[in-house]
Amino acid sequence: MSYGKGTRKVSQDRGLIRYLMRHRHTTPFEMVEFKFHCKMPIFVARQWVRHRTANINEYSLRYSKARDEFYYPDPEHIQFQSALNKQGRSGKVPKKLTDKVQQYFHEISERSFEMYQELNEAGLARELIRGILPVNLYTEWYWKNDLHNLLHFISLRSDSHAQYEIRVYSDAMADFVKKVAPHAWEAYQDYEVRGLRFSRIEQNMLNQHLPNRVIDDILEDLAYQVTATLHKNKPREDHELYPLYRKQEGHDTEDDFQLKWESGEIQTGNVREMREFKSKLQSL
Amino acid sequence: MSYGKGTRKVSQDRGLIRYLMRHRHTTPFEMVEFKFHCKMPIFVARQWVRHRTANINEYSLRYSKARDEFYYPDPEHIQFQSALNKQGRSGKVPKKLTDKVQQYFHEISERSFEMYQELNEAGLARELIRGILPVNLYTEWYWKNDLHNLLHFISLRSDSHAQYEIRVYSDAMADFVKKVAPHAWEAYQDYEVRGLRFSRIEQNMLNQHLPNRVIDDILEDLAYQVTATLHKNKPREDHELYPLYRKQEGHDTEDDFQLKWESGEIQTGNVREMREFKSKLQSL
Amino acid sequence: MSYGKGTRKVSQDRGLIRYLMRHRHTTPFEMVEFKFHCKMPIFVARQWVRHRTANINEYSLRYSKARDEFYYPDPEHIQFQSALNKQGRSGKVPKKLTDKVQQYFHEISERSFEMYQELNEAGLARELIRGILPVNLYTEWYWKNDLHNLLHFISLRSDSHAQYEIRVYSDAMADFVKKVAPHAWEAYQDYEVRGLRFSRIEQNMLNQHLPNRVIDDILEDLAYQVTATLHKNKPREDHELYPLYRKQEGHDTEDDFQLKWESGEIQTGNVREMREFKSKLQSL
Amino acid sequence: MSYGKGTRKVSQDRGLIRYLMRHRHTTPFEMVEFKFHCKMPIFVARQWVRHRTANINEYSLRYSKARDEFYYPDPEHIQFQSALNKQGRSGKVPKKLTDKVQQYFHEISERSFEMYQELNEAGLARELIRGILPVNLYTEWYWKNDLHNLLHFISLRSDSHAQYEIRVYSDAMADFVKKVAPHAWEAYQDYEVRGLRFSRIEQNMLNQHLPNRVIDDILEDLAYQVTATLHKNKPREDHELYPLYRKQEGHDTEDDFQLKWESGEIQTGNVREMREFKSKLQSL
Repeated sequence: MSYGKGTRKVSQDRGLIRYLMRHRHTTPFEMVEFKFHCKMPIFVARQWVRHRTANINEYSLRYSKARDEFYYPDPEHIQFQSALNKQGRSGKVPKKLTDKVQQYFHEISERSFEMYQELNEAGLARELIRGILPVNLYTEWYWKNDLHNLLHFISLRSDSHAQYEIRVYSDAMADFVKKVAPHAWEAYQDYEVRGLRFSRIEQNMLNQHLPNRVIDDILEDLAYQVTATLHKNKPREDHELYPLYRKQEGHDTEDDFQLKWESGEIQTGNVREMREFKSKLQSL
Repeated sequence: MSYGKGTRKVSQDRGLIRYLMRHRHTTPFEMVEFKFHCKMPIFVARQWVRHRTANINEYSLRYSKARDEFYYPDPEHIQFQSALNKQGRSGKVPKKLTDKVQQYFHEISERSFEMYQELNEAGLARELIRGILPVNLYTEWYWKNDLHNLLHFISLRSDSHAQYEIRVYSDAMADFVKKVAPHAWEAYQDYEVRGLRFSRIEQNMLNQHLPNRVIDDILEDLAYQVTATLHKNKPREDHELYPLYRKQEGHDTEDDFQLKWESGEIQTGNVREMREFKSKLQSL
Repeated sequence: MSYGKGTRKVSQDRGLIRYLMRHRHTTPFEMVEFKFHCKMPIFVARQWVRHRTANINEYSLRYSKARDEFYYPDPEHIQFQSALNKQGRSGKVPKKLTDKVQQYFHEISERSFEMYQELNEAGLARELIRGILPVNLYTEWYWKNDLHNLLHFISLRSDSHAQYEIRVYSDAMADFVKKVAPHAWEAYQDYEVRGLRFSRIEQNMLNQHLPNRVIDDILEDLAYQVTATLHKNKPREDHELYPLYRKQEGHDTEDDFQLKWESGEIQTGNVREMREFKSKLQSL
Repeated sequence: MSYGKGTRKVSQDRGLIRYLMRHRHTTPFEMVEFKFHCKMPIFVARQWVRHRTANINEYSLRYSKARDEFYYPDPEHIQFQSALNKQGRSGKVPKKLTDKVQQYFHEISERSFEMYQELNEAGLARELIRGILPVNLYTEWYWKNDLHNLLHFISLRSDSHAQYEIRVYSDAMADFVKKVAPHAWEAYQDYEVRGLRFSRIEQNMLNQHLPNRVIDDILEDLAYQVTATLHKNKPREDHELYPLYRKQEGHDTEDDFQLKWESGEIQTGNVREMREFKSKLQSL
């Protein structure tokens, strides 16, 4: 839209989508809307609802009777409080203890639902008597969000720091996004999720130890890759190739260039991305 | 701001605030921010959190240990499911039954907390074992919102249709707003909350039955009130008063006018508001 | 969703939609999303953009060349500054003056675009030279919003206090909504737009003048209408009708009741709505 | 709040703030609100307003007369359209051309304001005649936003890709934030702004070229730094130091350790951050 152009080829779309994602132009991704029908334990819903851009329509325990549906953790997800991560779990729990956890979950769920049933049959107000139901009770909602904010949700909730019980929902939604919006998904993974971010302090340490030779090697590779990519996009005459490579700040002699060029080992990619990488390396 | 003017007198402020509220110019009310530190049962927090313009910072049961604090309803708030209102409660419940409700709340709260304690001491992950705690457990948060959205919250949650347990919080916040922003509060009450809204259908029924005489009587009253208010704001000579009244579409003879004028019974108010009322009545 | 029920009949949908709208249960209306491709003058876009729940993707004058498209007001929309309404226009302007306005709009638009063209051809940065273009230049965007917030937009921007130039867009979007979501549209009109709202002060004045007889007449009518509607929804035996009418607090004798009942003049409607109206009237 | 603790020492606050920022726990930063009174050209306001979490109260040209205040770019900011960056400017423009740009800005601003004045004096509606004013006209507003969203604004608008004319405002607001919230500002710079982010593709290239030796050197350094930091926070006996260092996966012999330890060259920092860096390096 920003360009005021009409429709384009798929390959151009992919490039544009990657460019937009890389440069955090988020508005086009807000134009795509996803709607999910989900059922989850209340303690999961409580984390989920904090993503405020979504629209939610939830099953109401004021209007409707609670249903006998509770979350019981599988033994492999019953773990110890993590010592390192105050909000995580880790370690293997002996069977005797996982059994106890499961038994407690069952006891409270069943006992509270029994009471709820009895009070409900006695005609008491549903909005009040739900107060005894535990947060592992399932609730249900329609949840609608745009792609930009959905990807943000997934990046936070499919992260290893997220609680397992919300991660499974996030991963399931991720599978849908992947199918429906494969280019946006791939770009988000490449730039946001699987990218590696160094803080200013880490960068300084990296600088102290990184030999210039390493940087130079990568820059040389980039000169070849940019040349090959430009040639692939718009084929050049043979005699134009070495000058083009030199323009990309390659330092090899013409003979060495020929050898490597003919090796067939040079990868191609996206010129703009390569140039951005180059300037990052030069900043090191 | 819209006028680009400097500071004004308090009386002018009040008039401006009322005008802004009446005409739904909401942005100035977004400029005032309120922050509350609140503790409430989880089932109340779940309704509260749906107001998405607020910023929330909540006590986390992933990081921190749950505290032995549960909501137990008083007998007078234990009522039957309302037959008319699917989401309400009504009626007086026999003591035997309120006793049972209280006993059940206590039983589940105490039993689940006991289990939680035991599992916590056994070193199990807090984010998991909280799953057995019921929604009458207290949680705690800082909640920040602007005046416009806070008033909207209060209008919905202090409404008679709101659940009692959230209404008490809403009413408590209303008391603060009343003290801090008395003019905005008064205007909100006058125009939004205590106003009477008739649907198109109700209006039609009103039209059929409302004798023109009633409307005419009110319009006459308004002509006197507008005249008196204009005179109060900028005193006129005696001989200017009757013509001014006639300009307001008053129909009394000059003699009748004099009689009524001298009765000292004419109320004054806000001219703009009176004119708006007049045009509403004329639309009937 | 709140009821956890499956699909329903259209007639039930209509009733539910009206109930939701009347009681300001807005979340279901957030589940429907509208996307519009619009072109409007910059000064209109500046008002429009203040509705912050929408997602916008706009043609960018940093990336792309401005196009020679300007808004020129028609003579009938060129009016004087309203004396009563600081933000409105009114009155008929002499042709000589409307001609001058149009001439000025043309002069500035054409001269500034000429300059823009020249500076653009000289290679100057587009993001800078756009600075001389007037706010009657057309811009273009995709605008996406949910039904609840779209109706709110329309209620503000199709209002008589809105500027004519944005009203035409709002009215055009309203036509689409009407076709796509006729029940929601009708309900919004009945309860929000064409409803009549009296402030607390106006209500007091109404109370003073409204004879009890008027209220009583309407209440009587309502007793008949509720009875007829209940009978229509679930037909009763003849002998059950008068007791049913009495239960609705009707005061006529059985003979009078029979006369009126057989007149065929009793309207039917929505029982819940009638009862709400009744309680409003009783509050007067 | 998440910890449910009381007040803490400043040094602990700094650590907590940095932790929260590093792990994108944004809600505490939403608890601080900033309000600015700003005056900017309309074309700048149009970019600014896209940040939708802010509350805005703007000077209205429907209510109030436009003021004779326009933005005229200084010669050094008049540049050519960038060839590489479709939305940027670059290069030095000859004086003759910068003079022309300035002259055109003056001509349009003065001529349009003259017309506006004349039409305004003729009594025409302000909301309409503002249509001829160019987007370099100054507007004015109150703008309120929370710290989290303000930092996001600054990161986008103080970026080198942002337009110069909005960057100066963003930079000015950044100066205030720096003074009022120095720890949050520093953390945001370290982790978000001056951090270096490698995409998955770049990471792969880095992996291919980065000798293990470089990584190992940095990991060794980190083992010393973690040991020194732990010792600084809670002093150890001499004989405990080497075992502590070994526990951090340091590989030097005890003799080499002693030499380096006594060199006084080991930096200290934040243990948690160092461990996070370590796991990033190990992922390479």
